This record gives sequence, C-alpha cells and structure tokens, in this order.
Amino acid sequence: MPKKQQKIVVIGSTGSLGQTTLNVLREFPENFQIEGLACFQNIQKLHQQILDFKPKFVAVYDIAAGVSLAQKLQKISAKNRPQIFIGPSGWEQIATLKSAHKTLFLSNGTTALDALLSAIKSHKQIALANKEVLVAHGEKIMNTAKKNNVTIVPIDSEHSAIFQCLQGEDPKSIEKIILTCSGGPFFGKNTEQLKNITFADAISHPVWKMGSKISVDSATLMNKGFEVIEAMHLFGLKESQVEVLIHPEGIVHSLVQFTDGSVKAQLSVPDMRFAILYALSYPNRLLASFPRLDLAALNNMHFYSADHQTFPGITLALEALKNRRTHTLVKANETAVQKFADQQIAFLDIYEHIRSELRK
Amino acid sequence: MPKKQQKIVVIGSTGSLGQTTLNVLREFPENFQIEGLACFQNIQKLHQQILDFKPKFVAVYDIAAGVSLAQKLQKISAKNRPQIFIGPSGWEQIATLKSAHKTLFLSNGTTALDALLSAIKSHKQIALANKEVLVAHGEKIMNTAKKNNVTIVPIDSEHSAIFQCLQGEDPKSIEKIILTCSGGPFFGKNTEQLKNITFADAISHPVWKMGSKISVDSATLMNKGFEVIEAMHLFGLKESQVEVLIHPEGIVHSLVQFTDGSVKAQLSVPDMRFAILYALSYPNRLLASFPRLDLAALNNMHFYSADHQTFPGITLALEALKNRRTHTLVKANETAVQKFADQQIAFLDIYEHIRSELRK
Repeated sequence: MPKKQQKIVVIGSTGSLGQTTLNVLREFPENFQIEGLACFQNIQKLHQQILDFKPKFVAVYDIAAGVSLAQKLQKISAKNRPQIFIGPSGWEQIATLKSAHKTLFLSNGTTALDALLSAIKSHKQIALANKEVLVAHGEKIMNTAKKNNVTIVPIDSEHSAIFQCLQGEDPKSIEKIILTCSGGPFFGKNTEQLKNITFADAISHPVWKMGSKISVDSATLMNKGFEVIEAMHLFGLKESQVEVLIHPEGIVHSLVQFTDGSVKAQLSVPDMRFAILYALSYPNRLLASFPRLDLAALNNMHFYSADHQTFPGITLALEALKNRRTHTLVKANETAVQKFADQQIAFLDIYEHIRSELRK
Repeated sequence: MPKKQQKIVVIGSTGSLGQTTLNVLREFPENFQIEGLACFQNIQKLHQQILDFKPKFVAVYDIAAGVSLAQKLQKISAKNRPQIFIGPSGWEQIATLKSAHKTLFLSNGTTALDALLSAIKSHKQIALANKEVLVAHGEKIMNTAKKNNVTIVPIDSEHSAIFQCLQGEDPKSIEKIILTCSGGPFFGKNTEQLKNITFADAISHPVWKMGSKISVDSATLMNKGFEVIEAMHLFGLKESQVEVLIHPEGIVHSLVQFTDGSVKAQLSVPDMRFAILYALSYPNRLLASFPRLDLAALNNMHFYSADHQTFPGITLALEALKNRRTHTLVKANETAVQKFADQQIAFLDIYEHIRSELRK
C-alpha cells in the first residue's frame, strides 16, 4: 500500500460515475486527497462538491458556466476557495497540475482529448473511463502514452478486468480477450419486439446503475461496440482478438485467453467501485469493505453468444473502425440517442441513423 | 518464450500424470528435452518410456526393481542406454542432476521428500504435483524453498490456478483463496446413499481422468482436504483464508479474492495438460493447441457450498493440520483407500479409519 497520500484530479466529477468516484475517494482519506475537480457545465453539482470535498482547484469547460461559478465562489471564504480554471484550456490546466499525481478522466464524449493528451505528456498517472475519446482518437492517445511511457489504467469494468488479468503476464501471450456484456435490458428480444421500445424502457438497465446516455448505449450494444474498439487500442489487439460474450449476471467482468489456452477472469459483484478503486490504487490494492462475491449463493452463471443480427451495435462499431470513421460513429450515436430521448426516432432507428452517417 | 531448450527431469513418470506429462513434453521438442525419468517400481512402463523418449538418466526407487531394469538396459545399445540410479538415493541423484534445469515431482505419497529437498537445495526449478509430500512435510519444504529462494510451481490444477492468478499481485493483498471442487462422483448424495458405494463407483470421476487412488480421494473429498493444506503451505495462508466451493463442471479451477474484494479466476476445459504446460513453461506461456474454452457453448456454470457433514474429508484434514498430525492423515488415508479397494471396508469406513487413527 502506498505510504504517501496521492493527490487526485477528477475530470467529469459531476456525472454519475464522478459522484461514485468521489464517494470512493472519501472512504480512503489516508490514501487519497482530492486535488482538483472538473465538470463540463453542471456548476450546481460542482459547487456542492466544492463545499463537500474542498478541492484546491476546479475547472469548468463551458465558459459561461465557469464565469458564473467563479462569481458564486466569491462567497466562500478565501481559505476554502479553490482556484478556478475556465474553458477548454481550463481542463488542460487542471489535468496537468504540478501538485497532482493522478488524473481521472470520467467525462463523456471527446471534449477531454486535449486535456488527456496534455496529462500524458506531463507524465501524470492516468485512469480513464471516458471511452468515446479512446474510440475516436485511440491511435493518437496510445501513441502519445507509449512515447511518454505512461500507463493508462482503464476504469470501465470490462477493461479493468482485462487489465487486472494481464498483470504479471507477457502481453505477447494474449491470444484473445473476451469482453462480457449483460446483454442490456432487451437481451433475448427479436427485432419485432424492439420496435416499440421507449426511452424509459431503455434506461432501466438490469445490472448496472448508470447515466441515461450510457444506458441507451448498453441497450443498443453500441456501448459494447465502443468497448471492443477501446480494448483494441488499450491492449494493442487486432479485431480478431476481441470477442463479446453475453453474461446476464454481470459477475465475470471480462476474460483473457492466453496462447496456451488458459483463461483468466476477473469477477466481483456488479459495482463500479471495484474498478474505480483499482484504478486509484494501482499498482497496489487497498483493503475495502465493498460487498464480497458469494458464488455458492449466486448458484449459477450464464453465458450466451451475442446476437449481432438483432443488435448490430458491435458490427457497426467494427465497420466504423475498419473505415477509420470512429469519430463519425461517436458523433452519430450521440445524435441518435438524443433524438431517441426526445422521442423523435424509434429505438431501432438509432442503428439506421448511425449506419447512414457511416456510409455518407 | 524461452530461447533455449530446457532440460527436464520427471520423477513419477510412469503414473497417469507422468504419462500425460511426457506427452506434453513430446509436443514441444524445441522448448524441452527429457533429461531424466524416475519411477517407484513400474520398470516395465519405464523401460518403454526409455525406448520412446531416450532420457540420459533414469532412476528407480525400489532396489530390486532397479537392479532388474539395469540388467534389461544392457540390451539397449550403449549410445541410447541411460545411466541408471537405483534406490532412494537414486531419486536424489536424478532430482539434482547438474545438467537439468527443472525437476517435476509427480509421484504419490511421501517417498519423494528427500529428493525434493535436495532438488530445492540444488536450486533446481521445481514443479510439484505430489500433494501428500506437501501435506505431510509442508513446513519443512516451504522453509527450505524460502531459504534457497526457489519457487515451487504447483501442477495440481487448483493450485496452478491460484498461482496463475497471483502473478503480478502482492501476496499480502490476498484476502482468501477459493479452491473449486467437482464434488466427486457422489456429489449431492446423502450418508444413506453412500453406504453401498463400491470401489468401481468411486473411481469413475465425472470430470477428470485420474489414477484410482486419487479418484477415491476425490470421491471422499480427502483430496480436497489435502489440497486445502497444500494451498496453505504453498501460498503461506491461514486456515480461515482457504475456502472450498463445489463447481461440478470443473471449468473454474480456483479463485483468489483480494483485499479490495476483487476476485480473479483461472479457467480452461478440464484437462491436466494446461497446468502441466504452465508449470513447464513458467514464467512464460507457450503456444499450445489444447482445446479452447467455449463458455457460450457451455451455457452455464454451477456453484454450491461443500457438504462437510456428509463428506467430512476437508474437516478431517483440518483437524489433522491443527494437531500437527498430517503425516498420520496421509498414511491413514492410504491404508483406508487400499482396504476399500480390497473390499475389506465400506466407503464411509474410510472416514472412520482416518478419524480413529488421528485420535489415537
């Protein structure tokens, strides 16, 4: 265990994952200190977090929101008032703080790209949950990390599982990785049954509690498609080396098959805190009171092949990757999910929208 | 992958596991060369292995059998004739061959103790399937290994799984290990149903093909009791840190739970060759054509608590360990299984025999 308290910067602290992360950090005051918090524009939540966690630095990507927060901060006593960075460059500033050891990227979309590249170049330890940025700019990010000899520790539970299974193993001995997938709320349904799916149906995920955007991505399997691309970048793999396996219980977070045929898996009860804490404490493990897995009580675990016909999310992602259109993929999916949330298009139209954007 | 061919000595080459090991070695001629073979007394099988594998050295523990083999070897041309070591000291000689890199201990019982200690002191790489020797003399063996800075790589599939899951991890971060257990051929039966079990019933193991002694030990769960003790020695754990979990499919070979609550497991189709090859190639992995695991085809995996009431094998083993009577445990079990094989006692009398010997 680290003797010294590590100073942590969290970019994307106001989202669902960000809030969970702050709660994890709060449980380990001897190990971690929150040095900086950053959000896109949710300054109400960020203001509350400033009062709760007393970071030394904060950053707001959206300039108007940032200015508004700066004014509000004047009411805090100078002693407890954080320094504020505003605008896109503000994220870069907080991501590269001299005083910080580790920067966590928990934001959505690709807005964190410049901050991430800057953090890598500043040799910060990096923990990454922001999958779209890796999907859209994976090559650039991984090349920069390699050049600067920086390890990117994934926070996605699947990629954390792979990363954990690869500790002490030669990366050359990977035969393939198997990303598990709960199947989403519509696993087992056919195309006919998917026609009348509503946004409310789509955001009730059976296993994981998540934000609504990622819940829809999980229902379409677009999220799993992103994860396949993310895994290829993170672990330097070819498309043929990444498989998806439906596992509704969400206990086995992913598996690695080695060249000798042996397989390693990482498991836990479905709770994001495991992957968050691992990314925070890596390369060590801390003593945590998170709920323990009880396989005998669980009794059994199920595994199924993915139905790429009914849920073409992974197929579309691989098509985008092949044609170097992953940036379009991310954008088209964002637009389609927003339209679906706004009841402008039906569930299956999400695929149609992405497909037509990719083939433009 | 190792550039250089490793020279291997196999002690216990004529048993079921020994034969499988030689077949594995034969598949990797670029990586391994069979330097020495040793058996207890099955010189007919050893003679055949000499013709097949052309070792430079052989050893026979039983003196009469060794003398008989030495005579038979005179018929082999001097060029192909191995040097023979006879008697208990013969095993020590072959275990410590100057020309060998790695010595495998696949024999049963405790006859290999001196050879094992000598091999450790000679700084040979050690791979160990011989669990009784570790059960009866674990403290001495592990202390010697520690003193000589020698890693003992287990070949038992459960312990190999644990060992693999611990690569790249700090041993201090182990919370507990979970040894899986097929449950044996009588899993789910009650005491009444076990009364009329025959030797033939007991040796038909549902998952693993093994020798008959270990098949009976598997049916009584005595084997799992031995494995618990073996694990405590190999990984320096307390009794409270080792659990047994029934898993009839035999796919998850064992699991490690870390202090942060995260669990790692090693899996493969049930086939001893995986653990054998890992022990041979450690710390590397080779490219093997063994059958691959297909979890979607398997569809599901089951887990149950162990029934220590009906199958008190593990409880007896822990009682022996607590009272420092593990040597008695191994001997009493050997005697009881032999009596059961000879139809002198019933299946459940195996427990009675061991219990009364332990409490003498």
